[in-house]
Amino acid sequence: MQQISNQRCFAGQQQVYQHASVSTRTAMRFSIYLPDQAREAHCPALFWLSGLTCTEENFTVKAGAQRMASQLGLIIIAPDTSPRGDIPDDPDAYDLGKGAGFYVDASEQPWQTHYQMHSYIAAELPALITQHFPVDSRRFGVFGHSMGGHGALIMHLRYPRLFKTVSAYAPIVAPSRVPWGQKVLSTYLGDNPAAWLEYDACELVGRQATSAHILIDQGDADEFLEQQLQPQRFIQACQSAGQSVQLRMQPGFDHSYYCIASFIDDHLQHHANALRIDA
Amino acid sequence: MQQISNQRCFAGQQQVYQHASVSTRTAMRFSIYLPDQAREAHCPALFWLSGLTCTEENFTVKAGAQRMASQLGLIIIAPDTSPRGDIPDDPDAYDLGKGAGFYVDASEQPWQTHYQMHSYIAAELPALITQHFPVDSRRFGVFGHSMGGHGALIMHLRYPRLFKTVSAYAPIVAPSRVPWGQKVLSTYLGDNPAAWLEYDACELVGRQATSAHILIDQGDADEFLEQQLQPQRFIQACQSAGQSVQLRMQPGFDHSYYCIASFIDDHLQHHANALRIDA
Repeated sequence: MQQISNQRCFAGQQQVYQHASVSTRTAMRFSIYLPDQAREAHCPALFWLSGLTCTEENFTVKAGAQRMASQLGLIIIAPDTSPRGDIPDDPDAYDLGKGAGFYVDASEQPWQTHYQMHSYIAAELPALITQHFPVDSRRFGVFGHSMGGHGALIMHLRYPRLFKTVSAYAPIVAPSRVPWGQKVLSTYLGDNPAAWLEYDACELVGRQATSAHILIDQGDADEFLEQQLQPQRFIQACQSAGQSVQLRMQPGFDHSYYCIASFIDDHLQHHANALRIDA
Repeated sequence: MQQISNQRCFAGQQQVYQHASVSTRTAMRFSIYLPDQAREAHCPALFWLSGLTCTEENFTVKAGAQRMASQLGLIIIAPDTSPRGDIPDDPDAYDLGKGAGFYVDASEQPWQTHYQMHSYIAAELPALITQHFPVDSRRFGVFGHSMGGHGALIMHLRYPRLFKTVSAYAPIVAPSRVPWGQKVLSTYLGDNPAAWLEYDACELVGRQATSAHILIDQGDADEFLEQQLQPQRFIQACQSAGQSVQLRMQPGFDHSYYCIASFIDDHLQHHANALRIDA
Protein backbone atom coordinates (compact mmCIF):
# COMPACT_ATOMS: atom_id res chain seq x y z
CA MET A 1 0.00 0.00 0.00
CA GLN A 2 1.41 3.32 -1.12
CA GLN A 3 0.70 6.73 0.42
CA ILE A 4 -0.08 9.21 -2.36
CA SER A 5 -0.58 12.31 -0.22
CA ASN A 6 -0.78 13.46 3.39
CA GLN A 7 -2.12 16.93 4.16
CA ARG A 8 -3.06 18.72 7.34
CA CYS A 9 -6.79 19.56 7.43
CA PHE A 10 -8.50 20.95 10.54
CA ALA A 11 -7.26 18.92 13.52
CA GLY A 12 -6.26 15.86 11.52
CA GLN A 13 -4.59 14.45 8.43
CA GLN A 14 -6.21 14.02 5.02
CA GLN A 15 -4.44 11.18 3.21
CA VAL A 16 -4.76 9.26 -0.07
CA TYR A 17 -3.50 5.70 -0.59
CA GLN A 18 -3.21 3.32 -3.52
CA HIS A 19 -3.10 -0.46 -3.27
CA ALA A 20 -3.37 -3.55 -5.46
CA SER A 21 -6.93 -4.84 -5.05
CA VAL A 22 -7.61 -8.57 -5.17
CA SER A 23 -11.29 -7.87 -5.83
CA THR A 24 -10.90 -5.66 -8.87
CA ARG A 25 -7.47 -6.90 -10.02
CA THR A 26 -6.46 -3.25 -10.47
CA ALA A 27 -4.83 -0.55 -8.43
CA MET A 28 -7.45 1.13 -6.26
CA ARG A 29 -7.29 4.48 -4.48
CA PHE A 30 -9.06 5.67 -1.38
CA SER A 31 -8.83 8.78 0.76
CA ILE A 32 -8.87 8.61 4.54
CA TYR A 33 -9.30 11.39 7.07
CA LEU A 34 -7.59 10.69 10.38
CA PRO A 35 -8.54 13.08 13.19
CA ASP A 36 -5.87 13.66 15.79
CA GLN A 37 -7.82 11.47 18.23
CA ALA A 38 -6.66 8.51 16.13
CA ARG A 39 -3.10 9.07 17.36
CA GLU A 40 -4.17 7.94 20.80
CA ALA A 41 -7.10 5.58 20.34
CA HIS A 42 -8.98 3.40 17.90
CA CYS A 43 -11.73 5.54 16.39
CA PRO A 44 -15.07 4.76 14.79
CA ALA A 45 -14.97 4.97 11.00
CA LEU A 46 -17.43 5.92 8.28
CA PHE A 47 -17.20 4.70 4.69
CA TRP A 48 -18.41 7.30 2.19
CA LEU A 49 -19.59 5.97 -1.18
CA SER A 50 -19.65 8.54 -3.97
CA GLY A 51 -21.93 8.94 -6.95
CA LEU A 52 -21.51 8.55 -10.70
CA THR A 53 -18.31 10.00 -12.23
CA CYS A 54 -16.63 10.56 -8.84
CA THR A 55 -13.23 9.43 -7.65
CA GLU A 56 -11.83 9.31 -4.11
CA GLU A 57 -11.32 13.07 -4.39
CA ASN A 58 -14.77 14.62 -4.80
CA PHE A 59 -16.09 14.08 -1.29
CA THR A 60 -12.73 14.83 0.25
CA VAL A 61 -12.43 18.21 -1.44
CA LYS A 62 -16.04 19.36 -1.62
CA ALA A 63 -18.07 18.03 1.32
CA GLY A 64 -16.40 19.94 4.13
CA ALA A 65 -16.67 16.90 6.39
CA GLN A 66 -13.30 17.23 8.10
CA ARG A 67 -14.34 20.04 10.44
CA MET A 68 -17.00 18.04 12.25
CA ALA A 69 -15.13 14.73 11.85
CA SER A 70 -12.19 16.24 13.71
CA GLN A 71 -14.52 17.43 16.48
CA LEU A 72 -16.23 14.05 16.80
CA GLY A 73 -13.13 11.92 16.35
CA LEU A 74 -14.49 10.15 13.29
CA ILE A 75 -12.31 8.53 10.63
CA ILE A 76 -13.78 8.82 7.12
CA ILE A 77 -12.75 6.58 4.21
CA ALA A 78 -13.78 7.58 0.68
CA PRO A 79 -12.99 4.96 -1.98
CA ASP A 80 -13.09 5.40 -5.74
CA THR A 81 -16.34 4.44 -7.50
CA SER A 82 -14.92 1.86 -9.91
CA PRO A 83 -11.73 0.20 -11.00
CA ARG A 84 -9.53 2.31 -13.29
CA GLY A 85 -6.81 1.79 -15.84
CA ASP A 86 -6.70 -0.37 -18.98
CA ILE A 87 -10.00 -2.19 -18.42
CA PRO A 88 -13.36 -2.43 -20.21
CA ASP A 89 -15.26 0.85 -20.26
CA ASP A 90 -17.94 2.77 -22.10
CA PRO A 91 -16.08 6.04 -22.66
CA ASP A 92 -19.14 7.80 -24.07
CA ALA A 93 -21.33 7.03 -21.04
CA TYR A 94 -20.98 8.67 -17.63
CA ASP A 95 -23.30 6.05 -16.12
CA LEU A 96 -21.54 2.82 -17.14
CA GLY A 97 -18.00 1.52 -16.76
CA LYS A 98 -15.37 3.67 -15.13
CA GLY A 99 -16.85 5.96 -12.47
CA ALA A 100 -20.00 3.82 -12.38
CA GLY A 101 -19.17 0.59 -10.53
CA PHE A 102 -22.62 0.76 -8.87
CA TYR A 103 -21.37 -1.26 -5.90
CA VAL A 104 -22.22 -4.60 -7.57
CA ASP A 105 -20.15 -7.65 -8.50
CA ALA A 106 -20.51 -8.01 -12.28
CA SER A 107 -21.24 -11.47 -13.66
CA GLU A 108 -21.28 -10.60 -17.36
CA GLN A 109 -18.36 -10.25 -19.75
CA PRO A 110 -16.36 -8.16 -20.33
CA TRP A 111 -17.13 -6.57 -16.93
CA GLN A 112 -16.76 -9.56 -14.62
CA THR A 113 -12.98 -9.58 -14.34
CA HIS A 114 -12.59 -6.11 -12.81
CA TYR A 115 -15.99 -4.66 -11.89
CA GLN A 116 -16.25 -6.28 -8.44
CA MET A 117 -16.96 -3.19 -6.38
CA HIS A 118 -19.40 -4.93 -4.07
CA SER A 119 -16.79 -7.33 -2.76
CA TYR A 120 -14.28 -4.52 -2.64
CA ILE A 121 -16.44 -2.32 -0.40
CA ALA A 122 -18.11 -5.06 1.65
CA ALA A 123 -15.03 -7.12 2.42
CA GLU A 124 -11.63 -6.15 1.06
CA LEU A 125 -11.60 -2.47 1.98
CA PRO A 126 -12.89 -2.84 5.57
CA ALA A 127 -10.31 -5.55 6.17
CA LEU A 128 -7.54 -3.46 4.69
CA ILE A 129 -8.53 -0.44 6.75
CA THR A 130 -8.72 -2.49 9.93
CA GLN A 131 -5.28 -3.90 9.26
CA HIS A 132 -3.52 -0.61 8.57
CA PHE A 133 -5.32 2.14 10.51
CA PRO A 134 -6.43 2.74 14.12
CA VAL A 135 -10.13 2.04 13.52
CA ASP A 136 -12.57 0.44 15.93
CA SER A 137 -14.05 -2.13 13.54
CA ARG A 138 -17.04 -2.67 15.84
CA ARG A 139 -18.03 0.93 15.09
CA PHE A 140 -18.28 1.22 11.29
CA GLY A 141 -20.93 3.22 9.48
CA VAL A 142 -21.64 3.80 5.79
CA PHE A 143 -23.09 6.73 3.89
CA GLY A 144 -23.14 8.04 0.36
CA HIS A 145 -24.69 10.09 -2.42
CA SER A 146 -26.88 9.06 -5.36
CA MET A 147 -25.27 5.85 -6.74
CA GLY A 148 -23.31 5.88 -3.48
CA GLY A 149 -26.49 6.38 -1.46
CA HIS A 150 -27.70 3.19 -3.11
CA GLY A 151 -24.38 1.61 -2.20
CA ALA A 152 -24.67 2.71 1.42
CA LEU A 153 -28.21 1.37 1.81
CA ILE A 154 -27.43 -2.03 0.34
CA MET A 155 -24.18 -2.34 2.32
CA HIS A 156 -26.03 -1.69 5.57
CA LEU A 157 -29.04 -3.84 4.73
CA ARG A 158 -26.91 -6.81 3.66
CA TYR A 159 -24.20 -6.46 6.31
CA PRO A 160 -25.80 -4.69 9.28
CA ARG A 161 -23.29 -6.14 11.73
CA LEU A 162 -20.37 -4.73 9.71
CA PHE A 163 -21.88 -1.34 8.80
CA LYS A 164 -23.94 -0.64 11.89
CA THR A 165 -25.10 2.87 10.94
CA VAL A 166 -26.26 4.33 7.63
CA SER A 167 -27.35 7.54 5.99
CA ALA A 168 -27.75 8.73 2.43
CA TYR A 169 -28.19 11.77 0.23
CA ALA A 170 -30.45 11.46 -2.82
CA PRO A 171 -30.01 7.68 -3.01
CA ILE A 172 -31.07 5.46 -5.89
CA VAL A 173 -33.39 3.30 -3.77
CA ALA A 174 -34.94 1.06 -6.42
CA PRO A 175 -32.31 0.47 -9.13
CA SER A 176 -34.27 -2.37 -10.70
CA ARG A 177 -37.09 0.07 -11.47
CA VAL A 178 -35.34 3.24 -12.71
CA PRO A 179 -33.31 3.95 -15.90
CA TRP A 180 -29.85 4.38 -14.29
CA GLY A 181 -30.19 1.09 -12.44
CA GLN A 182 -31.80 -0.86 -15.25
CA LYS A 183 -29.03 0.11 -17.66
CA VAL A 184 -26.23 -0.81 -15.28
CA LEU A 185 -27.78 -3.94 -13.80
CA SER A 186 -28.67 -5.41 -17.18
CA THR A 187 -25.15 -4.73 -18.43
CA TYR A 188 -23.22 -5.98 -15.39
CA LEU A 189 -25.60 -8.79 -14.31
CA GLY A 190 -27.43 -9.71 -17.51
CA ASP A 191 -31.11 -10.50 -17.83
CA ASN A 192 -31.31 -11.99 -14.36
CA PRO A 193 -33.97 -10.29 -12.21
CA ALA A 194 -33.13 -12.39 -9.15
CA ALA A 195 -29.54 -11.12 -9.25
CA TRP A 196 -30.73 -7.53 -9.64
CA LEU A 197 -32.78 -7.74 -6.47
CA GLU A 198 -29.69 -8.51 -4.40
CA TYR A 199 -28.70 -4.88 -5.08
CA ASP A 200 -32.09 -3.21 -4.65
CA ALA A 201 -32.59 -1.45 -1.31
CA CYS A 202 -36.39 -1.57 -1.55
CA GLU A 203 -36.23 -5.35 -2.00
CA LEU A 204 -33.59 -5.89 0.67
CA VAL A 205 -35.37 -3.95 3.41
CA GLY A 206 -38.48 -6.01 2.76
CA ARG A 207 -36.60 -9.20 3.54
CA GLN A 208 -35.09 -8.10 6.83
CA ALA A 209 -35.35 -4.80 8.68
CA THR A 210 -32.40 -3.71 10.81
CA SER A 211 -32.23 -2.05 14.19
CA ALA A 212 -30.67 1.09 12.70
CA HIS A 213 -32.41 4.39 12.11
CA ILE A 214 -31.81 5.41 8.49
CA LEU A 215 -31.39 9.14 7.70
CA ILE A 216 -31.99 10.32 4.14
CA ASP A 217 -31.66 13.88 2.84
CA GLN A 218 -33.17 14.68 -0.54
CA GLY A 219 -33.25 18.08 -2.26
CA ASP A 220 -36.66 18.90 -3.68
CA ALA A 221 -35.03 20.74 -6.63
CA ASP A 222 -32.95 17.66 -7.50
CA GLU A 223 -33.08 17.23 -11.27
CA PHE A 224 -33.05 13.43 -10.94
CA LEU A 225 -35.72 13.19 -8.25
CA GLU A 226 -38.69 11.97 -10.26
CA GLN A 227 -37.06 9.76 -12.86
CA GLN A 228 -34.13 8.15 -11.04
CA LEU A 229 -34.50 8.53 -7.27
CA GLN A 230 -38.14 8.19 -6.17
CA PRO A 231 -37.39 8.07 -2.42
CA GLN A 232 -41.03 7.42 -1.53
CA ARG A 233 -40.59 3.87 -2.79
CA PHE A 234 -38.06 3.27 -0.03
CA ILE A 235 -40.13 4.98 2.65
CA GLN A 236 -43.08 2.75 1.80
CA ALA A 237 -40.87 -0.34 1.80
CA CYS A 238 -39.46 0.64 5.20
CA GLN A 239 -42.93 1.21 6.62
CA SER A 240 -44.06 -2.20 5.41
CA ALA A 241 -40.94 -3.81 6.87
CA GLY A 242 -40.92 -1.95 10.18
CA GLN A 243 -37.60 -0.27 9.36
CA SER A 244 -36.92 3.02 11.14
CA VAL A 245 -36.25 5.73 8.55
CA GLN A 246 -36.45 9.51 8.18
CA LEU A 247 -36.64 11.22 4.79
CA ARG A 248 -35.94 14.96 4.96
CA MET A 249 -37.06 16.79 1.83
CA GLN A 250 -34.75 19.82 1.70
CA PRO A 251 -36.37 22.80 0.00
CA GLY A 252 -34.43 24.34 -2.88
CA PHE A 253 -31.50 21.93 -2.86
CA ASP A 254 -30.32 20.13 -5.98
CA HIS A 255 -28.20 17.01 -6.64
CA SER A 256 -24.83 18.70 -6.09
CA TYR A 257 -22.17 18.70 -3.41
CA TYR A 258 -23.58 22.00 -2.16
CA CYS A 259 -26.44 19.93 -0.76
CA ILE A 260 -24.03 17.39 0.72
CA ALA A 261 -21.95 20.10 2.40
CA SER A 262 -25.02 21.86 3.77
CA PHE A 263 -26.09 18.83 5.81
CA ILE A 264 -22.81 17.01 6.41
CA ASP A 265 -22.74 17.99 10.08
CA ASP A 266 -26.13 16.38 10.60
CA HIS A 267 -25.01 13.16 8.94
CA LEU A 268 -21.83 12.91 10.97
CA GLN A 269 -23.78 13.58 14.16
CA HIS A 270 -26.31 10.94 13.14
CA HIS A 271 -23.57 8.31 12.89
CA ALA A 272 -21.73 9.55 15.96
CA ASN A 273 -24.86 9.35 18.07
CA ALA A 274 -25.77 5.89 16.83
CA LEU A 275 -22.21 4.67 17.36
CA ARG A 276 -22.34 6.33 20.78
CA ILE A 277 -19.49 8.77 20.53
CA ASP A 278 -19.16 11.47 23.12
CA ALA A 279 -18.44 14.68 21.23
CA MET B 1 -24.98 40.11 -17.25
CA GLN B 2 -25.97 36.47 -17.54
CA GLN B 3 -26.68 34.06 -14.70
CA ILE B 4 -24.80 30.81 -15.30
CA SER B 5 -25.97 28.88 -12.25
CA ASN B 6 -27.99 29.29 -9.05
CA GLN B 7 -27.77 26.61 -6.38
CA ARG B 8 -29.02 26.34 -2.83
CA CYS B 9 -26.12 26.10 -0.33
CA PHE B 10 -26.64 26.27 3.43
CA ALA B 11 -29.08 29.15 4.11
CA GLY B 12 -28.37 31.01 0.90
CA GLN B 13 -27.82 30.86 -2.85
CA GLN B 14 -24.53 30.13 -4.59
CA GLN B 15 -24.60 31.77 -8.01
CA VAL B 16 -22.27 32.26 -10.97
CA TYR B 17 -22.54 35.13 -13.46
CA GLN B 18 -20.83 36.12 -16.69
CA HIS B 19 -20.59 39.64 -18.07
CA ALA B 20 -18.73 41.63 -20.72
CA SER B 21 -15.89 43.41 -18.95
CA VAL B 22 -14.81 46.85 -20.11
CA SER B 23 -11.51 46.42 -18.26
CA THR B 24 -10.39 43.15 -19.83
CA ARG B 25 -12.41 43.40 -23.07
CA THR B 26 -13.44 39.79 -22.54
CA ALA B 27 -16.26 37.93 -20.90
CA MET B 28 -15.54 37.58 -17.17
CA ARG B 29 -17.10 35.22 -14.67
CA PHE B 30 -17.55 35.57 -10.94
CA SER B 31 -19.34 33.57 -8.29
CA ILE B 32 -21.41 35.19 -5.57
CA TYR B 33 -22.83 33.71 -2.40
CA LEU B 34 -25.98 35.43 -1.21
CA PRO B 35 -27.09 34.49 2.31
CA ASP B 36 -30.81 34.64 2.92
CA GLN B 37 -30.30 37.84 4.93
CA ALA B 38 -29.72 39.56 1.57
CA ARG B 39 -33.39 39.08 0.70
CA GLU B 40 -34.31 41.60 3.36
CA ALA B 41 -31.36 43.93 3.74
CA HIS B 42 -28.16 45.20 2.17
CA CYS B 43 -25.34 43.01 3.46
CA PRO B 44 -21.59 43.51 3.87
CA ALA B 45 -19.59 41.84 1.11
CA LEU B 46 -16.17 40.22 0.90
CA PHE B 47 -14.19 39.88 -2.32
CA TRP B 48 -12.13 36.68 -2.44
CA LEU B 49 -9.10 36.74 -4.76
CA SER B 50 -7.80 33.31 -5.76
CA GLY B 51 -4.32 32.06 -6.48
CA LEU B 52 -2.51 30.89 -9.58
CA THR B 53 -4.45 28.56 -11.95
CA CYS B 54 -7.78 29.16 -10.19
CA THR B 55 -11.10 30.23 -11.68
CA GLU B 56 -14.21 31.55 -9.95
CA GLU B 57 -14.96 27.95 -8.97
CA ASN B 58 -12.10 26.82 -6.69
CA PHE B 59 -12.92 28.86 -3.62
CA THR B 60 -16.63 28.36 -4.08
CA VAL B 61 -16.35 24.58 -4.16
CA LYS B 62 -13.45 23.92 -1.81
CA ALA B 63 -13.27 26.53 0.95
CA GLY B 64 -16.47 25.69 2.80
CA ALA B 65 -17.12 29.38 3.41
CA GLN B 66 -20.87 29.32 2.89
CA ARG B 67 -21.72 27.81 6.29
CA MET B 68 -20.29 30.68 8.30
CA ALA B 69 -21.17 33.30 5.67
CA SER B 70 -24.81 32.29 5.97
CA GLN B 71 -24.61 32.59 9.75
CA LEU B 72 -22.95 36.00 9.63
CA GLY B 73 -24.99 37.37 6.74
CA LEU B 74 -21.92 37.96 4.56
CA ILE B 75 -22.01 38.11 0.77
CA ILE B 76 -18.86 36.65 -0.86
CA ILE B 77 -17.81 37.42 -4.42
CA ALA B 78 -15.09 35.27 -6.04
CA PRO B 79 -13.91 36.49 -9.45
CA ASP B 80 -11.78 34.63 -11.96
CA THR B 81 -8.00 35.21 -11.79
CA SER B 82 -7.48 36.43 -15.36
CA PRO B 83 -9.28 37.12 -18.60
CA ARG B 84 -10.05 34.00 -20.67
CA GLY B 85 -10.77 33.13 -24.26
CA ASP B 86 -8.85 33.85 -27.46
CA ILE B 87 -6.23 36.13 -25.91
CA PRO B 88 -2.43 36.11 -25.43
CA ASP B 89 -1.27 33.34 -23.10
CA ASP B 90 1.71 31.21 -22.18
CA PRO B 91 0.10 27.78 -22.37
CA ASP B 92 3.17 26.01 -20.97
CA ALA B 93 3.37 28.20 -17.83
CA TYR B 94 0.95 27.99 -14.90
CA ASP B 95 2.32 31.26 -13.53
CA LEU B 96 1.87 33.56 -16.53
CA GLY B 97 -1.07 34.44 -18.75
CA LYS B 98 -4.42 32.79 -18.19
CA GLY B 99 -5.00 31.96 -14.54
CA ALA B 100 -2.20 34.34 -13.54
CA GLY B 101 -3.49 37.90 -13.93
CA PHE B 102 -1.63 38.85 -10.72
CA TYR B 103 -4.07 41.68 -10.05
CA VAL B 104 -2.03 44.19 -12.09
CA ASP B 105 -2.79 46.34 -15.15
CA ALA B 106 -0.34 45.22 -17.83
CA SER B 107 1.47 47.91 -19.81
CA GLU B 108 3.47 45.66 -22.13
CA GLN B 109 2.39 44.04 -25.38
CA PRO B 110 0.80 41.63 -26.08
CA TRP B 111 -0.66 41.63 -22.55
CA GLN B 112 -1.89 45.20 -22.26
CA THR B 113 -5.14 44.87 -24.17
CA HIS B 114 -6.76 42.25 -21.92
CA TYR B 115 -4.67 41.74 -18.76
CA GLN B 116 -6.19 44.59 -16.74
CA MET B 117 -7.15 42.69 -13.63
CA HIS B 118 -6.23 45.51 -11.27
CA SER B 119 -8.81 47.85 -12.71
CA TYR B 120 -11.28 45.04 -12.94
CA ILE B 121 -11.06 44.17 -9.22
CA ALA B 122 -10.51 47.68 -7.87
CA ALA B 123 -13.18 49.48 -9.86
CA GLU B 124 -15.32 47.61 -12.37
CA LEU B 125 -16.34 44.63 -10.27
CA PRO B 126 -17.24 46.52 -7.07
CA ALA B 127 -19.36 48.92 -9.16
CA LEU B 128 -21.06 46.06 -10.96
CA ILE B 129 -21.78 44.24 -7.71
CA THR B 130 -23.15 47.41 -6.10
CA GLN B 131 -25.41 47.98 -9.08
CA HIS B 132 -26.88 44.49 -9.27
CA PHE B 133 -26.85 42.97 -5.76
CA PRO B 134 -28.04 43.99 -2.27
CA VAL B 135 -24.59 44.86 -0.91
CA ASP B 136 -23.74 47.59 1.58
CA SER B 137 -20.88 49.17 -0.34
CA ARG B 138 -19.64 50.95 2.80
CA ARG B 139 -18.86 47.51 4.23
CA PHE B 140 -16.56 45.80 1.72
CA GLY B 141 -13.63 43.59 2.67
CA VAL B 142 -11.07 41.71 0.60
CA PHE B 143 -9.18 38.49 1.20
CA GLY B 144 -7.32 35.91 -0.84
CA HIS B 145 -4.74 33.15 -1.17
CA SER B 146 -1.17 33.21 -2.49
CA MET B 147 -1.31 35.37 -5.65
CA GLY B 148 -4.76 36.37 -4.37
CA GLY B 149 -3.34 37.12 -0.92
CA HIS B 150 -1.03 39.54 -2.71
CA GLY B 151 -4.05 40.92 -4.52
CA ALA B 152 -5.98 41.37 -1.30
CA LEU B 153 -3.14 43.19 0.45
CA ILE B 154 -2.52 45.63 -2.40
CA MET B 155 -6.24 46.25 -2.89
CA HIS B 156 -6.65 47.18 0.76
CA LEU B 157 -3.44 49.19 0.99
CA ARG B 158 -4.20 51.20 -2.15
CA TYR B 159 -7.95 51.57 -1.61
CA PRO B 160 -8.54 51.35 2.16
CA ARG B 161 -11.77 53.30 1.96
CA LEU B 162 -13.21 50.85 -0.60
CA PHE B 163 -11.89 47.60 0.91
CA LYS B 164 -12.05 48.43 4.60
CA THR B 165 -10.99 45.03 5.95
CA VAL B 166 -8.39 42.56 4.73
CA SER B 167 -6.98 39.11 5.44
CA ALA B 168 -4.81 36.67 3.53
CA TYR B 169 -3.59 33.10 3.36
CA ALA B 170 0.00 32.47 2.32
CA PRO B 171 0.23 35.78 0.43
CA ILE B 172 3.01 36.82 -1.93
CA VAL B 173 3.99 39.90 0.05
CA ALA B 174 7.03 41.10 -1.90
CA PRO B 175 6.48 40.24 -5.57
CA SER B 176 9.32 42.46 -6.73
CA ARG B 177 11.75 40.29 -4.73
CA VAL B 178 10.61 36.69 -5.39
CA PRO B 179 10.64 34.53 -8.57
CA TRP B 180 6.87 34.34 -9.17
CA GLY B 181 6.53 38.10 -8.92
CA GLN B 182 9.66 38.98 -10.84
CA LYS B 183 8.64 36.79 -13.77
CA VAL B 184 5.13 38.21 -13.98
CA LEU B 185 5.94 41.85 -13.25
CA SER B 186 8.77 41.96 -15.80
CA THR B 187 6.50 40.39 -18.41
CA TYR B 188 3.38 42.49 -17.77
CA LEU B 189 5.08 45.77 -16.76
CA GLY B 190 8.46 45.60 -18.44
CA ASP B 191 11.76 46.68 -16.92
CA ASN B 192 10.17 49.40 -14.85
CA PRO B 193 10.92 49.06 -11.11
CA ALA B 194 8.78 52.06 -10.19
CA ALA B 195 5.76 50.41 -11.77
CA TRP B 196 6.48 47.13 -9.98
CA LEU B 197 6.40 48.82 -6.60
CA GLU B 198 2.80 49.94 -7.14
CA TYR B 199 1.94 46.26 -6.76
CA ASP B 200 4.24 45.33 -3.89
CA ALA B 201 2.56 45.09 -0.47
CA CYS B 202 5.83 45.61 1.43
CA GLU B 203 6.41 48.83 -0.46
CA LEU B 204 2.82 50.05 -0.21
CA VAL B 205 2.49 49.58 3.54
CA GLY B 206 5.67 51.59 4.02
CA ARG B 207 4.09 54.56 2.27
CA GLN B 208 0.87 54.66 4.24
CA ALA B 209 -0.36 52.41 7.01
CA THR B 210 -4.12 51.90 7.35
CA SER B 211 -6.36 51.67 10.38
CA ALA B 212 -7.20 48.04 9.65
CA HIS B 213 -5.87 45.03 11.51
CA ILE B 214 -4.45 42.60 8.93
CA LEU B 215 -4.84 38.85 9.58
CA ILE B 216 -2.48 36.44 7.78
CA ASP B 217 -2.48 32.64 8.05
CA GLN B 218 0.56 30.77 6.77
CA GLY B 219 1.14 27.01 6.89
CA ASP B 220 4.61 26.14 8.10
CA ALA B 221 4.70 23.11 5.77
CA ASP B 222 3.88 25.30 2.74
CA GLU B 223 6.16 24.22 -0.11
CA PHE B 224 6.42 27.83 -1.36
CA LEU B 225 7.15 29.44 1.98
CA GLU B 226 10.86 30.14 1.70
CA GLN B 227 11.27 30.92 -1.96
CA GLN B 228 8.06 32.72 -2.91
CA LEU B 229 6.20 33.92 0.18
CA GLN B 230 8.60 35.11 2.91
CA PRO B 231 5.91 36.60 5.16
CA GLN B 232 8.46 38.00 7.61
CA ARG B 233 9.25 40.67 5.04
CA PHE B 234 5.72 41.98 5.38
CA ILE B 235 5.68 41.73 9.18
CA GLN B 236 8.84 43.83 9.33
CA ALA B 237 7.45 46.36 6.88
CA CYS B 238 4.26 46.64 8.93
CA GLN B 239 6.21 47.10 12.14
CA SER B 240 8.25 49.87 10.54
CA ALA B 241 5.11 51.53 9.25
CA GLY B 242 2.97 51.12 12.36
CA GLN B 243 0.51 48.84 10.57
CA SER B 244 -1.46 46.46 12.78
CA VAL B 245 -0.90 42.90 11.58
CA GLN B 246 -1.01 39.33 12.90
CA LEU B 247 0.83 36.47 11.22
CA ARG B 248 -0.30 33.05 12.43
CA MET B 249 2.11 30.28 11.49
CA GLN B 250 -0.08 27.18 11.30
CA PRO B 251 1.82 24.01 12.12
CA GLY B 252 1.67 21.22 9.55
CA PHE B 253 -0.44 23.05 7.00
CA ASP B 254 0.57 23.29 3.33
CA HIS B 255 -0.39 25.62 0.44
CA SER B 256 -3.67 23.86 -0.39
CA TYR B 257 -7.35 24.58 0.06
CA TYR B 258 -7.32 22.26 3.07
CA CYS B 259 -5.51 25.05 4.88
CA ILE B 260 -7.97 27.64 3.61
CA ALA B 261 -10.97 25.56 4.72
CA SER B 262 -9.45 24.89 8.14
CA PHE B 263 -9.33 28.59 9.04
CA ILE B 264 -12.11 30.06 6.91
CA ASP B 265 -14.37 30.60 9.93
CA ASP B 266 -11.67 32.71 11.59
CA HIS B 267 -11.25 34.85 8.48
CA LEU B 268 -14.96 35.46 8.08
CA GLN B 269 -15.25 36.36 11.77
CA HIS B 270 -12.27 38.69 11.41
CA HIS B 271 -14.02 40.63 8.65
CA ALA B 272 -17.42 40.47 10.35
CA ASN B 273 -16.02 41.88 13.55
CA ALA B 274 -14.15 44.66 11.78
CA LEU B 275 -17.18 45.52 9.69
CA ARG B 276 -19.22 45.39 12.92
CA ILE B 277 -21.72 42.70 12.11
CA ASP B 278 -23.77 41.22 14.88
CA ALA B 279 -23.71 37.46 14.32
